[in-house]
Amino acid sequence: MNYGKLVKQACNQMNRAMDEYARASGLTGTQMSIIDFIGSKSVVLQRDIEAEFNIQRSTASVLLQRMEARALVTRQTVAGDARQKEVRLTPKAERLHEMVAVYIAKQQNAMTSEFTPAECATFVRMLQYFIQLNHDEQAPSEP
Amino acid sequence: MNYGKLVKQACNQMNRAMDEYARASGLTGTQMSIIDFIGSKSVVLQRDIEAEFNIQRSTASVLLQRMEARALVTRQTVAGDARQKEVRLTPKAERLHEMVAVYIAKQQNAMTSEFTPAECATFVRMLQYFIQLNHDEQAPSEP
Repeated sequence: MNYGKLVKQACNQMNRAMDEYARASGLTGTQMSIIDFIGSKSVVLQRDIEAEFNIQRSTASVLLQRMEARALVTRQTVAGDARQKEVRLTPKAERLHEMVAVYIAKQQNAMTSEFTPAECATFVRMLQYFIQLNHDEQAPSEP
Repeated sequence: MNYGKLVKQACNQMNRAMDEYARASGLTGTQMSIIDFIGSKSVVLQRDIEAEFNIQRSTASVLLQRMEARALVTRQTVAGDARQKEVRLTPKAERLHEMVAVYIAKQQNAMTSEFTPAECATFVRMLQYFIQLNHDEQAPSEP
């Protein structure tokens, strides 16, 4: 059983299901996830989104520009730091956030009721180790 | 700890590390994974690739057309079933396969030496359940 392949399958399947769910509200799965993240914090910096979703600055900029154009978020330069932007949900997106939170909580509950707390903890530790492994891989070695 | 978010982070980080590793040979990470899959079987049908990577037929077709154009694979219609194609590695890709197999085995070994067999089994079961969960989600419900 190849762990990398299984992680990729899980990710593909999750993205496809999320896309399908989000489409009903005219969103992409990624937009839905970002709305959930911002909504759970009320206000975030763009760099928080980069860190949370493990995406590059350029990718985050494109995503957020599209969401701004669709009146889902507003972006405002932080007083005293021209390089950072505060990102907030619009009232329209606030309403979507409630819906999205229910969808994500349902999945989370399905996992925690199927598996023991110890199993869930193992799952998290192994995913974190896998992330670290691929992070270490990335930096130094060109084969 | 949101499992979906963690799975996505793991996938993003793995893809980024794979892309970087593959780039040294002029490949993308996905091409590298497909070469590994075909190389481990000697010959596969396109539908095997779709199933293995959980991707749509159209996505697989585009991927394989590009790999054929780069002389990494050959595709040949199956005798007696015009809709199916056999996919094989070229000698050039056979040499890449050896390299790729080492990279993937190294990651796999890192996981199995860090965690117990029981923990690894839990990890697999939970990823499989998560895949199933998102598969069930997909079909019936439009919110």
